[in-house]
Amino acid sequence: MSQTFEKLKQYIDKSMAYQTALTLLHWDLETLAPEESMNNTAKVIGLLSGEEFKSIINDDVRQLLEELGQPKEQEMLSFNQKAIVKALTKSYEQMEHIPPEEYQAYGELTAKASAIWAKAKEANSFEDFRPTLSDIIAYQKKFAGYRSKEGDKLYNLLLNDYEEGFSMEKLDAFFNKIKAAIIPLLKEVAAKQDSIDKSYNNLHYDKEKQLNFAKFVSEYVGYDFKKGVLAESAHPFTTHLHNHDVRITTHIYENNLESSIFSVIHESGHGIYEMYVDDAITMTPVGQGSSMGIHESQSRFYENIIGRSQAFWTPLYPKLQETFPEQLSNVTLLQFVKGINKAVPSLIRTEADELSYSLHIIIRYEIEKMLFEDEIKVEDLPTVWNQKYEEYLGIEPETDSDGVLQDIHWSGGMFGYFPSYALGSAIAAQLYYYMRSVMPLETYLKEGNLVPIREFLNNAIHKYGATKNTNELLMELMNEELNADYYIKYLTEKYTKLYNL
Amino acid sequence: MSQTFEKLKQYIDKSMAYQTALTLLHWDLETLAPEESMNNTAKVIGLLSGEEFKSIINDDVRQLLEELGQPKEQEMLSFNQKAIVKALTKSYEQMEHIPPEEYQAYGELTAKASAIWAKAKEANSFEDFRPTLSDIIAYQKKFAGYRSKEGDKLYNLLLNDYEEGFSMEKLDAFFNKIKAAIIPLLKEVAAKQDSIDKSYNNLHYDKEKQLNFAKFVSEYVGYDFKKGVLAESAHPFTTHLHNHDVRITTHIYENNLESSIFSVIHESGHGIYEMYVDDAITMTPVGQGSSMGIHESQSRFYENIIGRSQAFWTPLYPKLQETFPEQLSNVTLLQFVKGINKAVPSLIRTEADELSYSLHIIIRYEIEKMLFEDEIKVEDLPTVWNQKYEEYLGIEPETDSDGVLQDIHWSGGMFGYFPSYALGSAIAAQLYYYMRSVMPLETYLKEGNLVPIREFLNNAIHKYGATKNTNELLMELMNEELNADYYIKYLTEKYTKLYNL
Repeated sequence: MSQTFEKLKQYIDKSMAYQTALTLLHWDLETLAPEESMNNTAKVIGLLSGEEFKSIINDDVRQLLEELGQPKEQEMLSFNQKAIVKALTKSYEQMEHIPPEEYQAYGELTAKASAIWAKAKEANSFEDFRPTLSDIIAYQKKFAGYRSKEGDKLYNLLLNDYEEGFSMEKLDAFFNKIKAAIIPLLKEVAAKQDSIDKSYNNLHYDKEKQLNFAKFVSEYVGYDFKKGVLAESAHPFTTHLHNHDVRITTHIYENNLESSIFSVIHESGHGIYEMYVDDAITMTPVGQGSSMGIHESQSRFYENIIGRSQAFWTPLYPKLQETFPEQLSNVTLLQFVKGINKAVPSLIRTEADELSYSLHIIIRYEIEKMLFEDEIKVEDLPTVWNQKYEEYLGIEPETDSDGVLQDIHWSGGMFGYFPSYALGSAIAAQLYYYMRSVMPLETYLKEGNLVPIREFLNNAIHKYGATKNTNELLMELMNEELNADYYIKYLTEKYTKLYNL
Repeated sequence: MSQTFEKLKQYIDKSMAYQTALTLLHWDLETLAPEESMNNTAKVIGLLSGEEFKSIINDDVRQLLEELGQPKEQEMLSFNQKAIVKALTKSYEQMEHIPPEEYQAYGELTAKASAIWAKAKEANSFEDFRPTLSDIIAYQKKFAGYRSKEGDKLYNLLLNDYEEGFSMEKLDAFFNKIKAAIIPLLKEVAAKQDSIDKSYNNLHYDKEKQLNFAKFVSEYVGYDFKKGVLAESAHPFTTHLHNHDVRITTHIYENNLESSIFSVIHESGHGIYEMYVDDAITMTPVGQGSSMGIHESQSRFYENIIGRSQAFWTPLYPKLQETFPEQLSNVTLLQFVKGINKAVPSLIRTEADELSYSLHIIIRYEIEKMLFEDEIKVEDLPTVWNQKYEEYLGIEPETDSDGVLQDIHWSGGMFGYFPSYALGSAIAAQLYYYMRSVMPLETYLKEGNLVPIREFLNNAIHKYGATKNTNELLMELMNEELNADYYIKYLTEKYTKLYNL
């Protein structure tokens, strides 16, 4: 046992306590806190962010990490401990040059920003959000600048934070491949979109009944309410205090049945991941999902790959019909499955179908690149946004709310995050073909037996938390790196069949 | 402006940030957290309690407080700043001799204890809670021991924490006066209890409708949902992050209409107090209610003095009838007002009527005295409890759940708190007679105009937070100290009239 590691553990425990408190404060602001709470609470968040920062970024921890990096110490460390030291060293290097008071001010800024963004979106005024967004971007550039070495591109640093080893070069190649395959496919599909009628989806669906069904389907896919909570918020999200306290939210629309069902399955996928991180590493720097790409692969595997399949709905659809007999008794299973897969180029990312989804991501990726390469300014965003939508999807938002203000991410300083969604979709498809080769996936779904699927993912991915990165997880499981071909194959097969192309 | 105070302010801000986070963690455990969350979260609570402790109990703060106590510095301080220094000095002296690791362990212990108590209560087994309770009492004795001076009685120290200037001597006199008046009055009333029929109260009342009415009545008495939240929990309570984020809970029983209505009015009284603490002092050591006695005076003023009056229900009762027409259309206003005031000696404090309530408190007070004077042991509690109920109320609990396990307080280490409830009732009655002499209280109630009542209390009490103690508040407002005679007069007048004695 390493004495040095034991010393480090004290600092880690303290830092995790701050993180847990901050997570709860953010969760609470999004789900419950009264509207006038924000200003005072933001001060608390700022202060605790500052303390969290100082609990890790200090000379003691630097020295302990240096010692633990030496071969003699490394020999004494377990696999998990090595991973913890590695992860902490990485965040140390990310943050060590940021002055604590700037980190605290940034924490306070982003705590307030999501409410400012929400109000601006409601008022449909990008101008109301612009100054805050400018401040956030300025901080992001400054923080990335502190740690950049000569020749580093700032945006590459951010991309690498969310997905180790990824850069603009790699992502350009990835997205170009996808664009080449999907844009023509989407055109073919769009031409036949009238062949699927999903008007049933926009009838009136009682909120309480939707909430009950959401809870049911969440449990059905494997989310465990002894360790989890489902609440409502303006935008669905997942968060966790630790592996025994994982929380998801949904937003119910009474005139849209699908919206909440699929966001709940999606967030359940994230939640299941966090719930099955091993007890030995929860509340440590590797005690959560490995990367955002892997995280999105789990949520998207549940939401799209299985959640939109006919096999999945075969045992489940009668239950949905029972819940909403008036609206659905005349809608057949086949019609419903076609409806939930209908592809229509649309303005809103979170409502996009699987086929056009990646294009929404590509747009954000290209815009973030331009922002961080100083090719555009914050005030150019609405115009650039609208041009890109016209170019890739053939439609242009009429309002900022339906355009550049639609996503919460930038208000939280999450630049470099969006590509994870597309990477996640691609990984999910790759996992799908692999899993089909080692288990009777479709039979399980038709039988309503989702336990072996969850257990497979628990063992292949979840339990490791962030002790392994995306590439390691994929290589160890499938002996193959991320490969976009599976994703293209999956979409092509699926949509060719669905639309009889 | 005092530079020394500005330095102290840094420490205060940090300590308040910890307190706010801890408040939210506790709130969350009681209202929302999944059942398996507790063990990991308790570690976080323990750690943050330790940090909170160290943020104040350290040589820097000690020195700053010493300097600020000097006449030269005092001259430079505003009224609020003086009060902050005084309050902080008091808590410093309470805590300075406690070793930080003991404080942290105690924080972790009490974070777990409420769930252990709740389970023991459900299983109706005092034995399941006994070891935890013993540990808590041992800590309380140890902590009080650290700061006791020669001749100090430990329980006096605890009483003084909740109510400055109060001791067993003072409380014995107070309670003896009450006992002498109330025990005979209660006997007379009990003999005539069949004269009031309140069987309507235990019909079936839909939960959603009760919740909606609870929210309505809370707002009606002056609770502001822009700064507040109402949630459900096993036991109703009030907490606050700061003056713009105050939270109350209720518990709905579908076979008891009164229970939630009056606990919501009660908690709203606490909540209104916290909401109207002045902005200048929120998130400081004097940024909350002055004492538990004064706090209970506010909750009891709303719940009992006005909330159970005929004038209060005159405009409100039709709304309640409309909400529950089946159950209440044949119950007249007068019958309802008699029902909500019916006095029946019963086992459960929180369900007790106004008349017998003080006896429940006296029992707890006498038991705590014996515990801290080492006259009884923890294992004696169930027996002693039952004997006291037989002696004062003439009834004996058949189970521990209905007896010694009924209250949450001891699981949170709140010894010395219970007397506040009786003090609060007495202060509320004293306020009542005073307010009647300066405003048309009854007219306001009959007109459904509660704003002047709230504003009066805001200005007389709430805005000052803890910058003034109970005695100062009462003296400045009414030029009279706490006087139990008003309470006895109030109860005697009320129950003589109600039961035609």
